[in-house]
Amino acid sequence: MNEFELIARLVPSLPTNDFVVVGAGDDCAVLDLGVPDKLVLFKTDAVVEGIHFTRETPPEKIGRKALARCLSDIAAMAGTPTAALITIGLPSREGGIDAPLVEKIYAGMNALAKQHGVAIAGGETTTNPERILISISLIGTVPRNKVSLRSGAKTGDAIFVTGELGGSLAARHLEFEPRLAEARWLAEHVSVHAMIDLSDGLAGDLRHILKASGVGADLLKRAVPISRAAKTAAKAGDAAKPAFAAALTDGEDFELLFTVASKDAVKLLDAWKKKFPDVKLSCIGKIVSQEGITIRDKTGSYQLSANGYVHFA
Amino acid sequence: MNEFELIARLVPSLPTNDFVVVGAGDDCAVLDLGVPDKLVLFKTDAVVEGIHFTRETPPEKIGRKALARCLSDIAAMAGTPTAALITIGLPSREGGIDAPLVEKIYAGMNALAKQHGVAIAGGETTTNPERILISISLIGTVPRNKVSLRSGAKTGDAIFVTGELGGSLAARHLEFEPRLAEARWLAEHVSVHAMIDLSDGLAGDLRHILKASGVGADLLKRAVPISRAAKTAAKAGDAAKPAFAAALTDGEDFELLFTVASKDAVKLLDAWKKKFPDVKLSCIGKIVSQEGITIRDKTGSYQLSANGYVHFA
Repeated sequence: MNEFELIARLVPSLPTNDFVVVGAGDDCAVLDLGVPDKLVLFKTDAVVEGIHFTRETPPEKIGRKALARCLSDIAAMAGTPTAALITIGLPSREGGIDAPLVEKIYAGMNALAKQHGVAIAGGETTTNPERILISISLIGTVPRNKVSLRSGAKTGDAIFVTGELGGSLAARHLEFEPRLAEARWLAEHVSVHAMIDLSDGLAGDLRHILKASGVGADLLKRAVPISRAAKTAAKAGDAAKPAFAAALTDGEDFELLFTVASKDAVKLLDAWKKKFPDVKLSCIGKIVSQEGITIRDKTGSYQLSANGYVHFA
Repeated sequence: MNEFELIARLVPSLPTNDFVVVGAGDDCAVLDLGVPDKLVLFKTDAVVEGIHFTRETPPEKIGRKALARCLSDIAAMAGTPTAALITIGLPSREGGIDAPLVEKIYAGMNALAKQHGVAIAGGETTTNPERILISISLIGTVPRNKVSLRSGAKTGDAIFVTGELGGSLAARHLEFEPRLAEARWLAEHVSVHAMIDLSDGLAGDLRHILKASGVGADLLKRAVPISRAAKTAAKAGDAAKPAFAAALTDGEDFELLFTVASKDAVKLLDAWKKKFPDVKLSCIGKIVSQEGITIRDKTGSYQLSANGYVHFA
C-alpha cells in the first residue's frame, strides 16, 4: 500500500465539523472560522534528514526549505501566509541540545519568513536521536471568493505551469522561491479553475487535479518547460532518465500548475509577461473529458501509465 | 544549554506581525485573524517513540496521547479546539507503509477528536526510519475577553490545581482527559488571572506562571494533591523520590494550574464541587511578591531550587 492508497482508506473515517470547508485532499485544509471576508488555510509539512536533505546540507538551507515547502502550499490556494509554528526533532549531543545547529536552522527560516511577512509564533525542540526532522505548521488566509482548489478544472481549460521543471534535486530544492506573489496575482487577474504546487512532479500532481476534477489532460510535449539542470544531467549521460521524463517525474519543482478557461489564455500570457518578466509561464496543454494524461508530439500520441511513470513505448 | 535557555535565545529574533497577539512563550500562540468575537489559538506538539511512549504502547493509545496533549494546551487558554492536522513519521516496512499501524494510531486520535468535536482536516505520513514520531498541529478559538495567559497572576491570588499529581507515567499519561470543559467553565464563572496545563510538573510549570507574571508563590505542602500512583510507588520503595517530590516534578499530569483573586476562592470551590463532583480541585497556596517558590509545612518553610528540583534540606 502506498501513501495515496492509505490516505484514501483513512480519509472517510476522519472526524469533521462545520468549520471545515475543505478537509484532507488539497494543498491546504480550508476552514471557515468566521472571518468576515476570508477563509483560513491550514497546512503542515515535514522534512527529514536522509530524504529531503542530508547531514551535509547547510542548516540555514534546511530551515529555509522546510518553510518554503509550506509557503508553496499556501501559494497553491492563492493565499497569504500569516503565522508558522516550528517543531524540530534532533539528536542530542553531549551537554544537551545542539544549540548552534538549531539557531542556524532558525536563521534560514526567519529570513524567508520575514521576506513574506510571516510570523513565527512559537515552536519546540524534541529529541529524535538518529536524524533531524522539522515539522512546520502554517496558517494563512485567502479572500472567500479567490481560493483555488484542485477540483475546479473544466473540459477545454488551458493548462499552465510556471518556471522550468526537472532536476530540482541538483540545487534548486534548497533555493526555490515560493510563488506566493504570482499566485495571488493570478487569483486577482484571471479566473483560476484549479491550482496545485508541483511537489511530486508534473505527471503526479497533474493527476491530483484530474482526479479531483473528474477530467483528463492532453499535454504537448514540446511545450513542457525543461530546466537546464535536467537537460545537463541527461546530456552528461549520468541521468537515470531523459530530460523530458525528469520534467514529468523528478518532483520538488515547487512551481504552480493551474488551469484557466481557454478564452483567458492569451490575455493571461500577455499580462504575465509584463508583470513577471523573469518567471516563465508556459501553456502546456488542455483539459479533456477523457480521463488520463495523453502526451502529444510530432510523431503522434501516447498515454502516461497510471502509476505516474512514463511508458516510452 | 537546556531547551528553555535556547528558547530564550531564539525568541527575540523570531519574525512577528500584526496578527500575533501572543507569540512564543505561552501554552498556545494567540492570533487575531479578524473573527469578530474570537481570537484564534494555534499549537503544535510532538511525541516520539522512546521518550513519550514505547514500541510496546498500543498504537491507539499513542495516537490518543498525541492529540490529548495538544487539547490540554488549548484547555490551558480556556479555548475550544476546532481542527487538527497530523504528521506521522514512521519506519517503512517491507512493501511500503505499515498501514495497520497508521490506522490504529488514527483510530485512537479519531475517537478523542470526535469526543471533543475536533475535525482532523488532513495530515501526512513521512519516513522516520528508526522510530515513530507524531507531530500534531491544532487550531482553536477563544472568546476575546476570556483567554487565560500565563502572565496574569497577581500578588495575593489563590493558586488552584485540578486532579492529583505525580506518577502519571505508570498509566495515566496514556489515558488522561484533557480539561477542556473544566477550563471553559472556569473562564465563564470566575476571573482566571493565569492558567497553564501541567506537562513539566507542578514545580516547573508554576515557575512558568511566576516568571511570566513577575511574582512568587507560597505552597502549602499538605494541600498539594498527590496521586495514588505516586504514593504507591513511594511506599513500594522502588521510587526514586518521595511522593511529594513526585507530585512536584514527575510531569505529564495534564491538569490545570491557575490563579484567581483570593476573594473568589471559596465561592469557586463551592461551585466547582457541584459542577464537577468527580474532579478534585485544590487550593494549594498563594501568589506572593517575592520571587521563587516557598514550600510551607508544619516544621517550617524552605525554598525550591531554581532548576526545578527540590532541596529536601
